[in-house]
Amino acid sequence: MAINLGFLLVISSLLLSLSTADWNILNQKKGKYGLQITLKNYCESWRMNVELHNIRDFEVVPEECVEYIGKYMTSTQYKVDSERTIDECTVYLSTSCGLKKDGADAWIFDIDDTLLSTVPYYKKNGYGMLIRDYYKTTLEVWGKYKNLEKGRKLNTTSLEEWMKQGKAPALEHSLRLFNQLKGLGVQIILVSSRKECLRSATIDNLVDVGYHGWKSLILRDENDENKDIQKYKADVRKQLANNGYRIWGILGDQWSSIDGLPTPKRSFKLPNPLYYVA
Amino acid sequence: MAINLGFLLVISSLLLSLSTADWNILNQKKGKYGLQITLKNYCESWRMNVELHNIRDFEVVPEECVEYIGKYMTSTQYKVDSERTIDECTVYLSTSCGLKKDGADAWIFDIDDTLLSTVPYYKKNGYGMLIRDYYKTTLEVWGKYKNLEKGRKLNTTSLEEWMKQGKAPALEHSLRLFNQLKGLGVQIILVSSRKECLRSATIDNLVDVGYHGWKSLILRDENDENKDIQKYKADVRKQLANNGYRIWGILGDQWSSIDGLPTPKRSFKLPNPLYYVA
Repeated sequence: MAINLGFLLVISSLLLSLSTADWNILNQKKGKYGLQITLKNYCESWRMNVELHNIRDFEVVPEECVEYIGKYMTSTQYKVDSERTIDECTVYLSTSCGLKKDGADAWIFDIDDTLLSTVPYYKKNGYGMLIRDYYKTTLEVWGKYKNLEKGRKLNTTSLEEWMKQGKAPALEHSLRLFNQLKGLGVQIILVSSRKECLRSATIDNLVDVGYHGWKSLILRDENDENKDIQKYKADVRKQLANNGYRIWGILGDQWSSIDGLPTPKRSFKLPNPLYYVA
Repeated sequence: MAINLGFLLVISSLLLSLSTADWNILNQKKGKYGLQITLKNYCESWRMNVELHNIRDFEVVPEECVEYIGKYMTSTQYKVDSERTIDECTVYLSTSCGLKKDGADAWIFDIDDTLLSTVPYYKKNGYGMLIRDYYKTTLEVWGKYKNLEKGRKLNTTSLEEWMKQGKAPALEHSLRLFNQLKGLGVQIILVSSRKECLRSATIDNLVDVGYHGWKSLILRDENDENKDIQKYKADVRKQLANNGYRIWGILGDQWSSIDGLPTPKRSFKLPNPLYYVA
């Protein structure tokens, strides 16, 4: 049977436009301002506005975007976006004059979703944890939210238990920058919102996946636990400056690692729409 | 002739996967770190890192991404992203207590690509102007770049000539916020990097497309022309605060409208990967 190729293409494109239309109808949201938008449009705008720091203090990824965000966090695009952030750090370092190699040049890194990936944990737990409250509050408060998130475990120890296993993989792009900075003689300071009780698990995990040779690992002790993370991290920067360090840059995945005074010379934000740390 | 539907689908999907593969091969870039990425991946990561403020001081959209950025700036996604920014302003206003309606509550807006769209100009001119230099330098410096950008007009008066025509359309989402703020009794202050000589054209354009009732329109005079835009805008905020205004928020499309001291209570950044104003 000789099938005309043009005919096949016409038929197939008709079939496909139909199924795309079906999908659109399924996911369509009638925009308030006359825009006909898809669920993908909606979730992409959510993610973009998180990264622009217009959406703040969100407690959970919106339920309808959990699948979209899950896909993004395990996609090539997420890797390419992150690689590009690191490339910009490299460009900055290669064009900054003034590194003195006197032991006072420093660079600050976050840990979670900057050096180590928590994506395997979130993947297993449905991408929708109340991370802000994880950092801020106690089991009692978590109880309040238990019925909000159907089927999702929201207990404050679950993420910490996972961290204690020390199985978080390295983010390869950040490891590359880490090693480059060591080569340049820059002191590497790790400043994390993890608690002190996680110190040995954190060190083991970091060393296991290839990070070694940092100058200082700063975790939150009891005094810091009542502070906002932004204030805690800004206070650390202040202390480091008082100790004579010249902080050339910060690499973090949260605006709270970067904002506040003293302002760093430069800061670089990795993408992370998974959670918000205030 | 009875055609088996399943057979048709198999054939058509084969044909389509082939053409998708061809497209990928055409656009593929061999990533430096083993990632096989498409041109779309590349340009999307460029845009994301502009919005994250990791890529700064770019003089032009990379040539290979001009088409991608042009499509984005005229897409539904750009509108949805912008609508979401405005929605976040609205949420913020509805949850802030403290508006006193005593004439001292204020809100700051940028003009270009915040209240008015310059996209029609860029569309006509290939989406690749050296905007930073447009604002910073003179005709002589432009001459230096003339041969860099094939086929693109790079003269300092071209954008200003377009602005003088007063034909820039309103960004409807911003007009909505503008009117909401008026309704709340908030004083609206427009702070733009446009020069004083454009004052009457700017006023005509704004009024024509529906903006009226602002308190003050601040443009750059001769003294401001040697300052960085960020410094100029921060100085304006300082002056406004000295005059007793409580600045509740800023809506802008450039980080230079938002960064620097004094820090506003809140700021909202609209997406704009078209150009960078330092």
